[in-house]
Amino acid sequence: MLKDNIVFVGNKPVMNYVLAVVTQFNNGAQEVAIKARGKAISRAVDTAEIALNRFLDGVSKKEILTATEIIDTDSGKTNVSSIEIILTNQ
Amino acid sequence: MLKDNIVFVGNKPVMNYVLAVVTQFNNGAQEVAIKARGKAISRAVDTAEIALNRFLDGVSKKEILTATEIIDTDSGKTNVSSIEIILTNQ
Repeated sequence: MLKDNIVFVGNKPVMNYVLAVVTQFNNGAQEVAIKARGKAISRAVDTAEIALNRFLDGVSKKEILTATEIIDTDSGKTNVSSIEIILTNQ
Repeated sequence: MLKDNIVFVGNKPVMNYVLAVVTQFNNGAQEVAIKARGKAISRAVDTAEIALNRFLDGVSKKEILTATEIIDTDSGKTNVSSIEIILTNQ
């Protein structure tokens, strides 16, 4: 079993990502990292909150990190914020 | 000087909020809390990242908290995620 399970949050409905997080814990993961960039950051927070409040017993937030990433686009480099929410099974 | 300065991030351009944060530190604040709910959460992260990377020397992230808030609307109660990013002057 991988120790570092990661769920990347994008533009799909939030319950898709909640299901991915819950599934990883049900498969025995000790930690799951929820990652997102740009406008998907608010959906990543929703994912963590819904998973913790409605589906996961004994799981809690371990750490929340934010950062700035530099992305190459057709029109040059641009900065985008990112978030990483780490959930851990106690 | 208030110890708990708060900047609420909404739907205005991000630089408005960056300016508010930088101004509070320049006025002597030791800590500034950046708060947002729902879709504004990603803009709150942008605000913190831009303020820290471009404008504030010696200021760092102290803590990032997320929560679920219950909001009363015309169509009943609804849940919304919130974030609080606390910056501190070292």
